[in-house]
Amino acid sequence: MTTLLLILPVRWAPIWQAPLRDAAPAHGLSNLNLIVHGKDAYAPGDIDYALGFRPDAGLLGSLPKLKAIFSLGAGVDGFLSDPAFPKHVPLVRFVNPALSLEMAQYCVLHTLIHHRRFRTTLAAQAEHKWTQAMPEKGTAKTGVGILGFGEIGIMAGERLRDLGFAVAGWSRTKKDVPGIESFAGEAALGPFLARSDILICLLPLTPETRGVLNRRLFAQLPKGAYLINAARGAHQVEADVIAALNEGQLSGASLDVFETEPLPKDNPLWAHPKIIVTPHNAGLSDPIAAAQSVAAGIAAAERGQPLQNVVDMARGY
Amino acid sequence: MTTLLLILPVRWAPIWQAPLRDAAPAHGLSNLNLIVHGKDAYAPGDIDYALGFRPDAGLLGSLPKLKAIFSLGAGVDGFLSDPAFPKHVPLVRFVNPALSLEMAQYCVLHTLIHHRRFRTTLAAQAEHKWTQAMPEKGTAKTGVGILGFGEIGIMAGERLRDLGFAVAGWSRTKKDVPGIESFAGEAALGPFLARSDILICLLPLTPETRGVLNRRLFAQLPKGAYLINAARGAHQVEADVIAALNEGQLSGASLDVFETEPLPKDNPLWAHPKIIVTPHNAGLSDPIAAAQSVAAGIAAAERGQPLQNVVDMARGY
Repeated sequence: MTTLLLILPVRWAPIWQAPLRDAAPAHGLSNLNLIVHGKDAYAPGDIDYALGFRPDAGLLGSLPKLKAIFSLGAGVDGFLSDPAFPKHVPLVRFVNPALSLEMAQYCVLHTLIHHRRFRTTLAAQAEHKWTQAMPEKGTAKTGVGILGFGEIGIMAGERLRDLGFAVAGWSRTKKDVPGIESFAGEAALGPFLARSDILICLLPLTPETRGVLNRRLFAQLPKGAYLINAARGAHQVEADVIAALNEGQLSGASLDVFETEPLPKDNPLWAHPKIIVTPHNAGLSDPIAAAQSVAAGIAAAERGQPLQNVVDMARGY
Repeated sequence: MTTLLLILPVRWAPIWQAPLRDAAPAHGLSNLNLIVHGKDAYAPGDIDYALGFRPDAGLLGSLPKLKAIFSLGAGVDGFLSDPAFPKHVPLVRFVNPALSLEMAQYCVLHTLIHHRRFRTTLAAQAEHKWTQAMPEKGTAKTGVGILGFGEIGIMAGERLRDLGFAVAGWSRTKKDVPGIESFAGEAALGPFLARSDILICLLPLTPETRGVLNRRLFAQLPKGAYLINAARGAHQVEADVIAALNEGQLSGASLDVFETEPLPKDNPLWAHPKIIVTPHNAGLSDPIAAAQSVAAGIAAAERGQPLQNVVDMARGY
């Protein structure tokens, strides 16, 4: 018997149990035992695999026989922030083309909302006003900068390139994507920011990237730039976002993630006229697709085969 | 000397005169004379070429030496609705990749707004509510139907396909575009509509397509479909759009064009909660690009060479 521990809000458990039970036999896992943390009783030594996000600190380190850990999302900062995280156990990110496409859709939607002044259009509609306001700069001269140019960033960048934008990506290592300028490393960040009329953050959250969306960074963007953050709330200094909007250094922002989630009802971001708040739904992992990935991963591990999409503990993503 | 008559609102004339004067010499037109209809005096026999949109009925037919007519936009219904239009004179549509891309952006933006329930998101933000409402149907199962699958439709369709949608196009003749289902002719319209969760109208306006977006057509869409009209106001029966929205046959509509433009202040479309009104700005022709096309066209005609993008008078587009 192989035992998988589900670490997630207990009310979500049924959403994940059924697809996991469905996926297991096709991957040769005839005897996959599902335990829900916080609901089912279990002994730490029974657990072979874990699946979830944001486990309580110390939990994973207390499971002596753990063979692999599967993240429910593309980001794994919720695991690595646990000081007792068992770094010798492979941690697998959920990488799925459908999820990446959903994230790319979010980036395209919010780029077009800002580029085409859609909120001005809605405001004009509310006043029954026919005003053909469009950006002074054409699309081909509008720089979109993708901060965090990995699988999802490339997928978003290609689609924005195909809509006519001047796209660039920034990452630790140079990427070769046709029609997209690739900037890599600290020294290239300034020039990258200077040409980003619309900046999209898709960075992994690591100690180096925490708080990177701050006043100092905004000052390096063209005056009146737009910010889209679909990565993690801890990337942004929210007081600095508000200040940059109020000073006109930023013209608008779409935020899918927040320092505190769910965003508290009295948080000033909700009511700021230049901010679009979305409830961390840029990309929602599809339980059916994720269950297939997890079942395939467990089956591979059981056969002693290498796992795909394992996090590099030194890089932190 | 070659004389070009500009037929457009007089206040727009300077926007077009300067780029035309700039473009002419590069195309060997050292002596291009620009006359603004309604402002400059001229004799009908002086006019060699005309550029504009929606000329007064009878005007073009009164110019005896006219060699070609250039449309300021992709649609030419504003010319062909003139019963005295001189059908023996070549009528050139403005076809420009930047304009087509702008139109494609509009289609992508509004498809994503509806698919991702963006107005629900904005309403939730107004109430400071964190609600992760997303469509029940995934993107891959969401059919986008492009009614009018020509240059612009194909450009929009390819981009929506690349964002994961199940795209189909409908046109008079079958088109071969990878990953997009092509429906052609009257008999295929029903099956095409039946799979269009989001219907985008990009048809040319002809006697056959006038009023095509009506109650009978909406009834053939899946219940709760969305409508995007970026073609012409005369394609839509606005009373039927409102009725279909109120009955739930349509869930939402983005309209860029209207039976009467500008849309009158007291028109009920402005205030309908399920309608997004945009002021006929899905694609605005760029005067610099258009001036280059027109200068190139005049130069070709003067050398006796064939013109590109000439309207087929029998089809009407």
